Amino acid sequence: MTSLELQKLLDSVRAGTADPAAAVDRITAAMRQAPFEDLGFARVDTHRELRQGFPEVILGLGKTPAQIAAIAARIVARRRPLLVTRAEPAAFEAVRAVAPSAVYHADARAITLAEGDVPRGKGTIVIACAGTSDLHVAEEAAITADIMGNTIDRLYDVGVAGIHRLLSEHDRIRTARVIIVVAGMEGALPSVVAGLVDVPVIAVPTSVGYGASFGGIAALLGMLNSCANGVAVVNIDNGFGAGAMASLINHL
Amino acid sequence: MTSLELQKLLDSVRAGTADPAAAVDRITAAMRQAPFEDLGFARVDTHRELRQGFPEVILGLGKTPAQIAAIAARIVARRRPLLVTRAEPAAFEAVRAVAPSAVYHADARAITLAEGDVPRGKGTIVIACAGTSDLHVAEEAAITADIMGNTIDRLYDVGVAGIHRLLSEHDRIRTARVIIVVAGMEGALPSVVAGLVDVPVIAVPTSVGYGASFGGIAALLGMLNSCANGVAVVNIDNGFGAGAMASLINHL
Amino acid sequence: MTSLELQKLLDSVRAGTADPAAAVDRITAAMRQAPFEDLGFARVDTHRELRQGFPEVILGLGKTPAQIAAIAARIVARRRPLLVTRAEPAAFEAVRAVAPSAVYHADARAITLAEGDVPRGKGTIVIACAGTSDLHVAEEAAITADIMGNTIDRLYDVGVAGIHRLLSEHDRIRTARVIIVVAGMEGALPSVVAGLVDVPVIAVPTSVGYGASFGGIAALLGMLNSCANGVAVVNIDNGFGAGAMASLINHL
Amino acid sequence: MTSLELQKLLDSVRAGTADPAAAVDRITAAMRQAPFEDLGFARVDTHRELRQGFPEVILGLGKTPAQIAAIAARIVARRRPLLVTRAEPAAFEAVRAVAPSAVYHADARAITLAEGDVPRGKGTIVIACAGTSDLHVAEEAAITADIMGNTIDRLYDVGVAGIHRLLSEHDRIRTARVIIVVAGMEGALPSVVAGLVDVPVIAVPTSVGYGASFGGIAALLGMLNSCANGVAVVNIDNGFGAGAMASLINHL
Amino acid sequence: MTSLELQKLLDSVRAGTADPAAAVDRITAAMRQAPFEDLGFARVDTHRELRQGFPEVILGLGKTPAQIAAIAARIVARRRPLLVTRAEPAAFEAVRAVAPSAVYHADARAITLAEGDVPRGKGTIVIACAGTSDLHVAEEAAITADIMGNTIDRLYDVGVAGIHRLLSEHDRIRTARVIIVVAGMEGALPSVVAGLVDVPVIAVPTSVGYGASFGGIAALLGMLNSCANGVAVVNIDNGFGAGAMASLINHL
Amino acid sequence: MTSLELQKLLDSVRAGTADPAAAVDRITAAMRQAPFEDLGFARVDTHRELRQGFPEVILGLGKTPAQIAAIAARIVARRRPLLVTRAEPAAFEAVRAVAPSAVYHADARAITLAEGDVPRGKGTIVIACAGTSDLHVAEEAAITADIMGNTIDRLYDVGVAGIHRLLSEHDRIRTARVIIVVAGMEGALPSVVAGLVDVPVIAVPTSVGYGASFGGIAALLGMLNSCANGVAVVNIDNGFGAGAMASLINHL
Amino acid sequence: MTSLELQKLLDSVRAGTADPAAAVDRITAAMRQAPFEDLGFARVDTHRELRQGFPEVILGLGKTPAQIAAIAARIVARRRPLLVTRAEPAAFEAVRAVAPSAVYHADARAITLAEGDVPRGKGTIVIACAGTSDLHVAEEAAITADIMGNTIDRLYDVGVAGIHRLLSEHDRIRTARVIIVVAGMEGALPSVVAGLVDVPVIAVPTSVGYGASFGGIAALLGMLNSCANGVAVVNIDNGFGAGAMASLINHL
Amino acid sequence: MTSLELQKLLDSVRAGTADPAAAVDRITAAMRQAPFEDLGFARVDTHRELRQGFPEVILGLGKTPAQIAAIAARIVARRRPLLVTRAEPAAFEAVRAVAPSAVYHADARAITLAEGDVPRGKGTIVIACAGTSDLHVAEEAAITADIMGNTIDRLYDVGVAGIHRLLSEHDRIRTARVIIVVAGMEGALPSVVAGLVDVPVIAVPTSVGYGASFGGIAALLGMLNSCANGVAVVNIDNGFGAGAMASLINHL
Repeated sequence: MTSLELQKLLDSVRAGTADPAAAVDRITAAMRQAPFEDLGFARVDTHRELRQGFPEVILGLGKTPAQIAAIAARIVARRRPLLVTRAEPAAFEAVRAVAPSAVYHADARAITLAEGDVPRGKGTIVIACAGTSDLHVAEEAAITADIMGNTIDRLYDVGVAGIHRLLSEHDRIRTARVIIVVAGMEGALPSVVAGLVDVPVIAVPTSVGYGASFGGIAALLGMLNSCANGVAVVNIDNGFGAGAMASLINHL
Repeated sequence: MTSLELQKLLDSVRAGTADPAAAVDRITAAMRQAPFEDLGFARVDTHRELRQGFPEVILGLGKTPAQIAAIAARIVARRRPLLVTRAEPAAFEAVRAVAPSAVYHADARAITLAEGDVPRGKGTIVIACAGTSDLHVAEEAAITADIMGNTIDRLYDVGVAGIHRLLSEHDRIRTARVIIVVAGMEGALPSVVAGLVDVPVIAVPTSVGYGASFGGIAALLGMLNSCANGVAVVNIDNGFGAGAMASLINHL
Repeated sequence: MTSLELQKLLDSVRAGTADPAAAVDRITAAMRQAPFEDLGFARVDTHRELRQGFPEVILGLGKTPAQIAAIAARIVARRRPLLVTRAEPAAFEAVRAVAPSAVYHADARAITLAEGDVPRGKGTIVIACAGTSDLHVAEEAAITADIMGNTIDRLYDVGVAGIHRLLSEHDRIRTARVIIVVAGMEGALPSVVAGLVDVPVIAVPTSVGYGASFGGIAALLGMLNSCANGVAVVNIDNGFGAGAMASLINHL
Repeated sequence: MTSLELQKLLDSVRAGTADPAAAVDRITAAMRQAPFEDLGFARVDTHRELRQGFPEVILGLGKTPAQIAAIAARIVARRRPLLVTRAEPAAFEAVRAVAPSAVYHADARAITLAEGDVPRGKGTIVIACAGTSDLHVAEEAAITADIMGNTIDRLYDVGVAGIHRLLSEHDRIRTARVIIVVAGMEGALPSVVAGLVDVPVIAVPTSVGYGASFGGIAALLGMLNSCANGVAVVNIDNGFGAGAMASLINHL
Repeated sequence: MTSLELQKLLDSVRAGTADPAAAVDRITAAMRQAPFEDLGFARVDTHRELRQGFPEVILGLGKTPAQIAAIAARIVARRRPLLVTRAEPAAFEAVRAVAPSAVYHADARAITLAEGDVPRGKGTIVIACAGTSDLHVAEEAAITADIMGNTIDRLYDVGVAGIHRLLSEHDRIRTARVIIVVAGMEGALPSVVAGLVDVPVIAVPTSVGYGASFGGIAALLGMLNSCANGVAVVNIDNGFGAGAMASLINHL
Repeated sequence: MTSLELQKLLDSVRAGTADPAAAVDRITAAMRQAPFEDLGFARVDTHRELRQGFPEVILGLGKTPAQIAAIAARIVARRRPLLVTRAEPAAFEAVRAVAPSAVYHADARAITLAEGDVPRGKGTIVIACAGTSDLHVAEEAAITADIMGNTIDRLYDVGVAGIHRLLSEHDRIRTARVIIVVAGMEGALPSVVAGLVDVPVIAVPTSVGYGASFGGIAALLGMLNSCANGVAVVNIDNGFGAGAMASLINHL
Repeated sequence: MTSLELQKLLDSVRAGTADPAAAVDRITAAMRQAPFEDLGFARVDTHRELRQGFPEVILGLGKTPAQIAAIAARIVARRRPLLVTRAEPAAFEAVRAVAPSAVYHADARAITLAEGDVPRGKGTIVIACAGTSDLHVAEEAAITADIMGNTIDRLYDVGVAGIHRLLSEHDRIRTARVIIVVAGMEGALPSVVAGLVDVPVIAVPTSVGYGASFGGIAALLGMLNSCANGVAVVNIDNGFGAGAMASLINHL
Repeated sequence: MTSLELQKLLDSVRAGTADPAAAVDRITAAMRQAPFEDLGFARVDTHRELRQGFPEVILGLGKTPAQIAAIAARIVARRRPLLVTRAEPAAFEAVRAVAPSAVYHADARAITLAEGDVPRGKGTIVIACAGTSDLHVAEEAAITADIMGNTIDRLYDVGVAGIHRLLSEHDRIRTARVIIVVAGMEGALPSVVAGLVDVPVIAVPTSVGYGASFGGIAALLGMLNSCANGVAVVNIDNGFGAGAMASLINHL
């Protein structure tokens, strides 16, 4: 209920065409109206797009294929773009049954269905990753930013131990409006990149590595302690979070 | 040496007005020229502003007052804005001797001297903090973003345990182009804020707390695991980093 | 041996109808009597209900199906309610052989058999969970509290990133006498809930999440550092512990 | 604005004695009314008592004496009971200037001023602690529960290495409606106590110890892993949190 | 009340010279009699020597000098040997006031007063330490084992990086009945020592070190992972615990 | 080469029946003689029994069945008792091929073959464990201590949450010369046991538990911080280490 | 483009045989030329050998067999030696298809193909390991150092608990120019070895162990805290890194 | 006793000019002779130089000034070079009393006295550090390598966020025979440096930083996970260890 609707209701009350008690009920209901559909095990947030510019995204982790498909069905029914992250092939099978046009991105472990209009971001999002092994996470970021309406430029395998591989791509880096940097092991790439540009860098640590990488803790700590300005960090392996954050910035 | 300068030099070589050997020297020198002043213990990055949009900032931590003042003197001599973070009063005394107009912000433990033009950010940066004890970090973010040319709106003591305090400021939150959220203890505020808006949220965990807050680890982990989209995190107590990141975004 | 029984025995000794030496033996034996049945690998605590209001519960973790069934058989033989937590289907098969009426709750991974009277708790226990993925733990809490004689109200998928989903259920929350809040990731939900009510909140961190959730540590720390009053925490994924604690409180 | 007030307002609108536009304003204002006083650095939560049964408590940690005194002055002005935790003597001096009847509890590092009526809890809260060194935390719990209207029974130095010290107080333990158990080092006391009773046990780990106690982590983990039912845990050294939780339960 | 005393009481009851009700009271009282003196803040365990072979030892950490002196006074009054560990000089001043013959061992930070007979251990306890910096902890072990009636042989500065320093003392090592090995840094000494002998080795990690020694964690983990048989570990810096354990073994 | 043999050799040199150069060679060789058999991948320590009282024990973890069998064959060939710990059934199959009388203990995951004389320990080793799930580790300790020549008394499922189960076995506990206490979760049992006796207690944390037990860290820390005297700790799940340590003590 | 080439180009420009604009392009291109082959998912560093003395090595971890084979094909095509670490048998199958002479080392999980000349290191690299279970990592170091042109001496199963096994090999240890020491569990071996020699020791912690070895953390910390001089450490299980570092040193 | 001396002794025995029993004694004594001076609290390792190429170095940490001076006196008395690390000014005062020519290096917190000949290293050791705050540790490395006979080249404040500062010094880096890289915060510098050269890099993490740098853990993990070849790591802040390791390598 907007202010305008409230004004109209009160005018009706004054005019006697609306019953005060009924108006109380309507206002109270509006104050309590749940902007979501309750599926029992999940509440699909139908107002998410109004508040945050993109419909609810389904995190596949910890949900059964049936649950994922049920939520996906509600989103598709509203003819809005669909994104399921951390989706196993079995989840894709279930989703395809309710949304035959859905696409599975194996590298990114993501399901998408581009439906309806999405506003375009203003510039290019460069997605750099340090090594081949970080590719899964970089792709999750790319798929996410893509369906959210952004132009993507992928720049893979440019780790700091061969710094010339990065420097030789200086031009592409400088065209970015936002940069996502994905790196495991020591996680040093975001510092070097951020030192070369004046745009925000979203750093994504990955769990790639062994021994004292501790499943991505080393990279996470490296990025949090970056000595460069303009670096902020998302969770380990959280390509989706980086893509969504970069998209928000690119739409400003 | 820009491409234009290089073109001119080669034209001179062709015209015979420049010696090829000398040109080799000049090009080689340009390729090696250090864009910094070497003070022995520090290399003042004089090209930082060209690359990153703001002159080098001095992190006071671990430097002596004399070292801080020496670096500050080089920056002030170029008539550029000065920012020293983590500065103790003794450092301010030393800086004031070389830059009498410098100002000390006790809450933020920062020294500033606004000199020269700085481009203005496009919107407002809202800085929200969860409790009174997080104020030091929030102020460091505010002072940083302010000297970098941004309009600031402070929204303090709006922690999640009294969620109405936050919701009652919904209008101010929605006017932001970027939001910095500072919180210690459980670090839950960024998730709630990010769920209400469609602009990027920079989360700053603070070391405020005791026991199992482990000097800010609890808040840091909470923020990294935020279930909301559009949240990225900087280091514990890193108000400066949040302010600089928010400024970069606000200048896009 | 109660005080009354002791008094009677001593009266008999005085009256000469009981032999002092025999009385010494009886008193000594009573002082040493083990209020449990020794199965070799386990000691079934037959006095648990007297001390704690509910018979011994079997933690299935780390026990073989045969061991679980053997202990269950002893409890069922006393015609008391049975609860096995962390029970795999194989354990259920073994239990069903000795207790054909036993029921398996797949979501909660629990076996129950409601036998004999259990006193009813006085109010309603609301069980809120932040996301669909936390459902297993919430169900363990629900099954536990249910068989211990409590009325349950389930409120699922009300995480803080869409705070309106929680606020729209304010009325249900306020009817609770005790609230169990189950959440993974940043674990912020208990703080928000506890800020809205004046009843105790039992917080259960879950191991749901990835990366820096560290198997529930992030949620655990978030809950321990809750800035709200009236929150106490149980172990990660310990739905049973939360249900039992809530039941104890609800029976006061 | 309650439902009743809303009904009256709408009746006035219908009767023409209230202007619809003005009514819109009043309703909108009520929806936005901040139930707190904004001191700039803090927002005093004036509705806390309505929501949670006790006025806002001041956590002294990280606040200046002047800030503490300013908040305390607002609470005292409303003639409600005052509790400041983690208060240094300097904070007490500042509070005494605005509230001359305030009392300082050195063991508990707490300031109290019992003003106005507080409803009484129904039973006794037993506060047990394992060693003399845990006394500070136990006293914080005791002072908290006391000013919140509860009867307290202190049972100190009953650690598990001399289990007879605990067992000899079995009668006092069994009279409790709620038990707070405070322990450092291995934190085993709550398990033993909870095994003896059928009332809820709030466990408080303390930072007492050295070496591998890691500032209370050992005790915290011990308590979270308690093999007894009916144990929930608060933060390390959080005597206040335990006292407030126990009081909430004791008022049910 | 021993079995013999119980027999006598029951004989009296039968003979009519004792009242059954009074006998109930006596037996009940005996069952509940607290074998400790309650000082309010502490319960002095007067039966400790019966159960464990040595009177209660006072851990000075976290106790005020007055509290330490009060407990010491109770022990001295019973003419039993006194040991206070982790005692600051101020604590010694307070103890000396109630026990003028008490001695302060500055290296070990311990107070002792050898009073009454203590049974002698059967062999020699060798106390080896890796470096000069571990001396404080080694001395705490030595003072403890000494007052508990053991012969001590100190073998200091025999770290593994100069293995010949250890091997040259092979004869002294082989005379030990129990060996205490104290080491910080990598904590490797217990493994080497245990590989040379067939007697139990008590390993004590110390907090000596810097950086990745993490206050003794490195040494603790090294000792727990010892690849040699016959090594068991006590807490970091716990010289007292090692001395007491070695003494128990040496008295077998 | 013993001192006696050296004396004889030098006498021969003097008598001219031995060549000095050859004697140099022999002495040098003796100084270098490896008291082990080199299998390439392993060096079987044939002098272990001389130094430590029991032949080398084979830790099965990380070795292939073939490697285990090869080492076992060398030990059996010397007709000495065999113990393989952490042995999978496949390892047993391989060992049985070279040592047909070997026995597999499934609970303890150990292979034994009692061959040759082993000196008997002087008293009884009581092995107590807290819960049924700790049985594997307790059995590893029992099998180890048994083959090393000790009398064992098993006391299982006596955890602290039902303290009467432990107290009812007080007599058996007091007959022990050494006690091994095995416990997971909060690891509190060793403190309680050690408070009841005057013999050494070897504490073994187990990885039993979930959530914040962190694979045995909670129990390990609890045991290291035991407030009771006479407790020393071995590695998590290290039943073998506890059995070997207890045996060493029991043979003193 | 070397200085010489640049000189020639400029001479041509002066002589009018080269166009200045074209020269600008060439110089600019040279400054940007990527010394790698871009495979999309990977950038094969073709200049690595020039900079670091050995061609790029392929870390198999996290790469698919197809990716590994594609990179291997590029290296083999240049007729340079090939090394793939952390290679599963499936990867070997894929590599063998493009490089039939490649060899698989199962113990080391490495693929090699010795092609082209590699300069020989000057001395011997001794590789010592503490136990049979550390053999995988030691072999990875050995295979790496071998293909990089070094003479290797393997010294396995010389852990510190039987120190004589190490001391008996003193001669072999002293012949080394560099020593690699591989150890899990307490990781003490590098300290002992480094105390015996005057050459650099590269320490490799392994993840061998259980319980409080925490996947190699115990060994890592032990090595970092080594009290011996001349020890530096590589990542847990990083046999390759140790081999490469030792080879670099051995080629000095 | 060398082999030569042993040969002579046996010749004397054969010639009858030496008594066999006396020879036994002499050989036995030689085998046991302690190559150290025992000061009670310390054993000065007088053979260290023979084994490791440089006399024993005194770690000042945890030693009293008197202890440091006593050990220093023994070293100086042998006219060998002195190095005390982690030395407070008070320690210098004490050392100066016994060695008036000793020098105090305040930045490095080290005492040196260059006495006697030390062999020169073959090349230059470059010591690079990332920031001004890392200077203390870099200086400890420099002073150590200097007194051990090496030529040093200091390259300070070349952190990765301004990568051009490092690249502009490429020539100096390439002249090194060994490189020490000192860095705090994210610790990325060693990876970048090692990617540019073909000589060994010794990485030293420093405790410089705040928040999630955790006293150097972030830098340590970053360095251990370096994706570049030819990097090995020493303990946090261990400038001495790096200097000694680099010196060993530089003397090969």
